[in-house]
Amino acid sequence: MLSAEVLRQLRDAAGADGLICEQDQLQTYECDGLTNFRAVPGAVVLPRDAHQVQAILRICTQHKIPFVARGAGTGLSGGALPAAGGVLLSFARMTRVLEVDIPNQRVVVEPGVINAHVTQQVAPYGYFYAPDPSSQPVCTIGGNVAENAGGAHCLKYGFTTTHVLGMEVVLPDGEVVHFGAKTLDTPGYDLSGVFVGSEGTLGVATKIILRIVKRPETVQTLLAAFDSSNAAGQTVSDIISAGMLPAAIEMMDRVTIQAAEAAVHANYPLCDGLLIVEMDGPRAEVDLQMQQVRSLSEKNGAWEIRQAQSDAERALLWKGRKAAFAAMGRIAKNYIVQDGVIPRTALSRVLDEIDRMSKEVGLRVANVFHAGDGNLHPMVLYDNTIPGQEEEALEFSYRILRLCVDNGGSITGEHGVGKEKQEVMGYMFAEPDLDTMQLVRCAFDPESLSNPDKLFPRPRLCAEKTGPYEPHPLEKAGTAQFF
Amino acid sequence: MLSAEVLRQLRDAAGADGLICEQDQLQTYECDGLTNFRAVPGAVVLPRDAHQVQAILRICTQHKIPFVARGAGTGLSGGALPAAGGVLLSFARMTRVLEVDIPNQRVVVEPGVINAHVTQQVAPYGYFYAPDPSSQPVCTIGGNVAENAGGAHCLKYGFTTTHVLGMEVVLPDGEVVHFGAKTLDTPGYDLSGVFVGSEGTLGVATKIILRIVKRPETVQTLLAAFDSSNAAGQTVSDIISAGMLPAAIEMMDRVTIQAAEAAVHANYPLCDGLLIVEMDGPRAEVDLQMQQVRSLSEKNGAWEIRQAQSDAERALLWKGRKAAFAAMGRIAKNYIVQDGVIPRTALSRVLDEIDRMSKEVGLRVANVFHAGDGNLHPMVLYDNTIPGQEEEALEFSYRILRLCVDNGGSITGEHGVGKEKQEVMGYMFAEPDLDTMQLVRCAFDPESLSNPDKLFPRPRLCAEKTGPYEPHPLEKAGTAQFF
Repeated sequence: MLSAEVLRQLRDAAGADGLICEQDQLQTYECDGLTNFRAVPGAVVLPRDAHQVQAILRICTQHKIPFVARGAGTGLSGGALPAAGGVLLSFARMTRVLEVDIPNQRVVVEPGVINAHVTQQVAPYGYFYAPDPSSQPVCTIGGNVAENAGGAHCLKYGFTTTHVLGMEVVLPDGEVVHFGAKTLDTPGYDLSGVFVGSEGTLGVATKIILRIVKRPETVQTLLAAFDSSNAAGQTVSDIISAGMLPAAIEMMDRVTIQAAEAAVHANYPLCDGLLIVEMDGPRAEVDLQMQQVRSLSEKNGAWEIRQAQSDAERALLWKGRKAAFAAMGRIAKNYIVQDGVIPRTALSRVLDEIDRMSKEVGLRVANVFHAGDGNLHPMVLYDNTIPGQEEEALEFSYRILRLCVDNGGSITGEHGVGKEKQEVMGYMFAEPDLDTMQLVRCAFDPESLSNPDKLFPRPRLCAEKTGPYEPHPLEKAGTAQFF
Repeated sequence: MLSAEVLRQLRDAAGADGLICEQDQLQTYECDGLTNFRAVPGAVVLPRDAHQVQAILRICTQHKIPFVARGAGTGLSGGALPAAGGVLLSFARMTRVLEVDIPNQRVVVEPGVINAHVTQQVAPYGYFYAPDPSSQPVCTIGGNVAENAGGAHCLKYGFTTTHVLGMEVVLPDGEVVHFGAKTLDTPGYDLSGVFVGSEGTLGVATKIILRIVKRPETVQTLLAAFDSSNAAGQTVSDIISAGMLPAAIEMMDRVTIQAAEAAVHANYPLCDGLLIVEMDGPRAEVDLQMQQVRSLSEKNGAWEIRQAQSDAERALLWKGRKAAFAAMGRIAKNYIVQDGVIPRTALSRVLDEIDRMSKEVGLRVANVFHAGDGNLHPMVLYDNTIPGQEEEALEFSYRILRLCVDNGGSITGEHGVGKEKQEVMGYMFAEPDLDTMQLVRCAFDPESLSNPDKLFPRPRLCAEKTGPYEPHPLEKAGTAQFF
């Protein structure tokens, strides 16, 4: 509960129409896309510019009130989950595109700008903004920065961090600083790079410099149906080994296809390994590459190959894939979507093991993933009306993440750690590695007010760690097989 | 002067054959590629593995002795300049390639591995390591990591930071930590990204995970001669606007051509703006693009266009460019090579102003640069036997960097700040921005022992900054026009 004095100060900072503190209204902010964690903030403030953000963070620091920034709230790891009774900054009123510089391929935006709006701004000039999370039509650039958002096309174009060159940030104590710049590779530490993906724990971005990309001459998409995920996976390896870098390679299993068909009737062939491969670039190159993809697919036993002949057909090929998460409701009462990464070469080994575990646990798993970069999205299906099944599903989903780590991978590709995966961070990283991250966190946020109790496996006071470290034998450098 | 006790401890750590402390031998380490700064270390140690590095850094921390890591010493900003009387770690004995994983396109190396050796290891499988600083045949991966090294082909392939996915680091207090991983986009802070380009100020890398790239089907190179740098610059803009991303676009002016011709007889046409444009990729695409480049060059008045018809001819086209720096000795007694970055659209404005300043100051400037990403390498020519001229040349070279900043650019593209450009950092960044970097430095290196007195404009004790910042008006966010 925030005091009347704090609320008065917040109202002064953001204006009377910039403060929400009625209980029923606050309730609407109690979670983001990860709905099994909920907390009601003490107030929601809607700043209009960096000055107001600065004033708000100063108030929070003065009174030691935790704060969380929120864009569209589409995140899947609980990154925008409020601190109970704390301050939630909504960026719904910082939605201006501040600069569009086509010749230098730069756009400067406020954090509340919607991802898809950036492309809309630059499309008339033949450009687009590359990172494309599924939530693209509604998610904001600020949230994308916090989570280092990915998407199907990040295989070729890279994650958000590749496309963010600099930013204006308000540090937790209210200081306004600038990281990076419009040019590449600025001197000093790459603090822009460290801020992207820091999940709101280092401060609040108020302006963001984006890089835009020239739209390719042509985009071509095909679908190929295989009798096993191994055959589909081998095709992915063959495509990459041939030196091609597709714009996207997506893979779906039988359960996912069934759900997608039930939901959107994309007319997918029912099979155990469905690939969607998209190539973009100059027409001469893409034509050639699509022939190669087709013959590699045939070599690996694809029994149906369909290439889109128009934009409408292409949209149809993507329709089922894009609806896959939401479609799970058609075949299961509840599901947990996970986000693990593995080396491409471990694909069939890991899929076989997930299958084995699925039978052991007695819970179905639907697999849909960005196959090109080994980013799995296993969905564990369950029924929360059956006592204990939610807990089983949750534990199973964490087992899958640990399996990814054991195979030289990672616990998140694009959704972030947030509230959901804090514990697994301790499985992936050794204590000294987490300690080093914590040192950076404390440098920016000594009071741990900025999105507290997220990302790291356990809350820790910054003063806790003083003086030199204890000796740590090289041999015990963590559970993950780093090298 | 290091005490006998410290020398004994260092000998224990690195072995008797791993310690150099004879004055005449120490002298050979007194500078790197930037020869106008010199300092003799108290000892040079040559560790064989991370254990030895750990032991050495613990000794340094215990006795508060500054230390500097050195690869091949080819850096141009004084990054490997020893701390006078301190410890210099040479990586001449940590040159193992630890792992070559072709299917997953990863190579793990020790920091002393030479850049070109990575490509040699993977070339039989059709891969290469992309970052290609001119010193590629001798410079080390460790040094490349410290400076975030670039090269002519970074326009398309990205700087070192794009190709380093993770590393083992010994922190100044001897703690061994791991940043990043073999998979992309690992959770938590991107400390691998912050370490790359940190110029040795955060600790010492002992293992580095590199990404390798498939060698393109074909590489084609042409040279085009223009009557003005503006016409050449316009051609660069036109190529990029057409949506092409060349592997490299290099530009040279008349003075540089004269020097290169005198040195290596590359048979360049003498002109005011010479472009070398290289395209790589699938043959079908590259053939088409080379035609486009040719016609854009003709449109902008190119009066000679030569396309290499063989690998030998291609090597000849590059020969003059690669020799450009060294060739300056043919036409000037001394020179200072600078490394500024500007937005592509500011190219002709900045070149005109450099020309104007050159006449005003009375010192010649030779321009050679990576035109595609606006990375200038102006060389200020002078004669150090004329009293005061070295100082004039130095001041002029800094004026050029300030000009880059005033035009929305940066003071270094790939050489780093090191010892050379510390002062100009204060021109590029506002105090709060530098303070934030310093916070990170202090988190890693509270005693400022790791490559001290580099990178930042002034030495500063980590304890100097305590408590919340002073209020800082948004309007005074620095000299650089950030937004």
